[in-house]
Amino acid sequence: MQMDFHYYNPTKIYFGKSALENLKAELEEYGDTVLLVYGKNAIKRMGLYDEIIKILEQAEKTVVELSGIKSNPSYTQMLEGARLVRENHVDLILAVGGGSVIDCSKGISLSAYCKGDPWERYWTNFEAVDNEIVPVGCVLTMAGTGSEMNGGSVITNEEKMIKGGRMYPANVNPKFSILNPEYTYSVPKYQMTSGIFDTMSHLMEQYFSGEDDNTTDYIIEGLLESLICSARVAIKEPENYEARSNLMWCAAMGLNKLAGLSKEQDWEVHMIEHQVGAYTDCAHGAGLAIVSVPYYKYIYPYGIDKFVRFARKIWNVDTDHMTKEEAALAGIERLADFIKELELPTTLREIGATEEMLPQIASSSVIKGSYKKLDASEILEILRQAY
Amino acid sequence: MQMDFHYYNPTKIYFGKSALENLKAELEEYGDTVLLVYGKNAIKRMGLYDEIIKILEQAEKTVVELSGIKSNPSYTQMLEGARLVRENHVDLILAVGGGSVIDCSKGISLSAYCKGDPWERYWTNFEAVDNEIVPVGCVLTMAGTGSEMNGGSVITNEEKMIKGGRMYPANVNPKFSILNPEYTYSVPKYQMTSGIFDTMSHLMEQYFSGEDDNTTDYIIEGLLESLICSARVAIKEPENYEARSNLMWCAAMGLNKLAGLSKEQDWEVHMIEHQVGAYTDCAHGAGLAIVSVPYYKYIYPYGIDKFVRFARKIWNVDTDHMTKEEAALAGIERLADFIKELELPTTLREIGATEEMLPQIASSSVIKGSYKKLDASEILEILRQAY
Repeated sequence: MQMDFHYYNPTKIYFGKSALENLKAELEEYGDTVLLVYGKNAIKRMGLYDEIIKILEQAEKTVVELSGIKSNPSYTQMLEGARLVRENHVDLILAVGGGSVIDCSKGISLSAYCKGDPWERYWTNFEAVDNEIVPVGCVLTMAGTGSEMNGGSVITNEEKMIKGGRMYPANVNPKFSILNPEYTYSVPKYQMTSGIFDTMSHLMEQYFSGEDDNTTDYIIEGLLESLICSARVAIKEPENYEARSNLMWCAAMGLNKLAGLSKEQDWEVHMIEHQVGAYTDCAHGAGLAIVSVPYYKYIYPYGIDKFVRFARKIWNVDTDHMTKEEAALAGIERLADFIKELELPTTLREIGATEEMLPQIASSSVIKGSYKKLDASEILEILRQAY
Repeated sequence: MQMDFHYYNPTKIYFGKSALENLKAELEEYGDTVLLVYGKNAIKRMGLYDEIIKILEQAEKTVVELSGIKSNPSYTQMLEGARLVRENHVDLILAVGGGSVIDCSKGISLSAYCKGDPWERYWTNFEAVDNEIVPVGCVLTMAGTGSEMNGGSVITNEEKMIKGGRMYPANVNPKFSILNPEYTYSVPKYQMTSGIFDTMSHLMEQYFSGEDDNTTDYIIEGLLESLICSARVAIKEPENYEARSNLMWCAAMGLNKLAGLSKEQDWEVHMIEHQVGAYTDCAHGAGLAIVSVPYYKYIYPYGIDKFVRFARKIWNVDTDHMTKEEAALAGIERLADFIKELELPTTLREIGATEEMLPQIASSSVIKGSYKKLDASEILEILRQAY
């Protein structure tokens, strides 16, 4: 743990089959008006919408609704939510859905009383938040993003063709998150596996940096191992509670800051995917899966020992009689095999990207990275490999 | 994650070489009067006392002191602190030291305004806390107990010869904890290794329960692996920052609730050690080391698959050609070897227990346990093995 760090995560987690029973007591902590934010029809089909409306009624709340939040939530919808908050003097934003709904809700929370243009101040210049933050609560129905336990909010500005966001301070975190793994049973398989890969990518982005011996890396390895094990069960048995509950908790742990403590972190795969997503509107986890393998094949020589460790500890590659080069590549191949097991796309072509888009995606991708800082021409090379 | 759970941990962590720089800003959050709680002379010898007094002066605080807190902090000292809080209208209790100082400070915090007898209400009947809780902040100088990031407070009632405590709600947690691994450099080796084994025991107590596939077990395995690796470095190089920082964070993670989520948990080793400690005043980690091996040798048949997994994953025992019995015992033997590496005592005799004490320790130990609920005669049998 050689780099100094601060850690503070005040989100209350209610986890399990009975988790929703805690909503009523939580609602009592806030004022009368609730903005209910959700996606399309999924929560109505599964009966969750009715359950929550009943609890809100029992708590005598005035409910304002913002529905139809898309995956890759748009800035336009976010501004619409901010307007609803101001006009109705909303006391609590209740996000019911997956990462997109929660990210949008946190964006609304930050922006409603923003002095100036929120996109410019908070999503472009990353200024400190100096306005009232409307509290957000969350009922999670999809596992992957980890948004239920952090202050992140990724929003797509359709006009500018930019998908951007960052980790805001802990007072932007959901105040409480209700995590019932059963709610994820009805998530279509493609979205389930996209979510699994999103979690996996969060863990790898934090893992692939540093050459020190750091407790955080051991925690990440445990989480990756559990994630892979439960993913394989859930693909075959979507209603296996044990597997779905592990996947749900791995997702929260994957991005609640703990798996990044005292780590420089990489995040280049996410930066590239954000622009892939802005151009193709693909599922986030699918975009990550496409970018990851060519990206890691490009950067592994710069952090080879960590890639050897990844092969050995995560994929049980017997690295004893291999060169470092062979071992590192064997690990990345196992990752590629796992992406196939998840039946996720492996090329940009499959998600509708055109060759013309590649230079635009490359030049608009933010540069982060750790073992190797890329330039736009190197990103373009990786995108071509991914095409 | 089959058992439902709640998780909430609002302690702010400042970790690293510059961690103390955050004390001033934290002090501004509280009123004028600070009760400074510490042990004997260690923090004066290392210059930390002077540094903290200077920061308190700069923050214009009125400082009341309670010093001389012993390892296995006594109820009498705790009541003395509670009196000081009441008489001086203390706004913040600042604990500077190891687990004993922090546990004592949390005890003071709970007890100062307790309506009735604190020992009876909070340490015996485990009643809900219904009085004002005075905030506690912490500057940690010794790693092991994890008290810096939880609501636990273990106190020894010398008159009744009982060492007791529990996890209180999260509002008893330190509001902030300052963790600078360099402060642990001057801890004598025996106390360092006792602390290491305390952390290890916390992790094992949580690990050895359940037969399900649970993400928490994978996290524990990562923490155990990192702990063992860094312990071996720190024994040889006490001022190896990397190792000491990992040990410090493993200790916090070992008992901040995360390593127990959705786990029944065992805790019988701690229950027996509490009484060993009450009779012998031994270092907590040393008592745990003595009890652990005979305890696990007694209970392993009731949770044999987990002990096989422990052998394989924590100690790299090649279990392929072993019976479960052999594999489980091989893991426990590796644990015994590690205790020897730590140069901790392995018999009750060494820490001054007499044969006459054994039945008293056995009959006063609280029964918890998971794979096997013991009765007093079985505890006595284990104590005889440990003698």
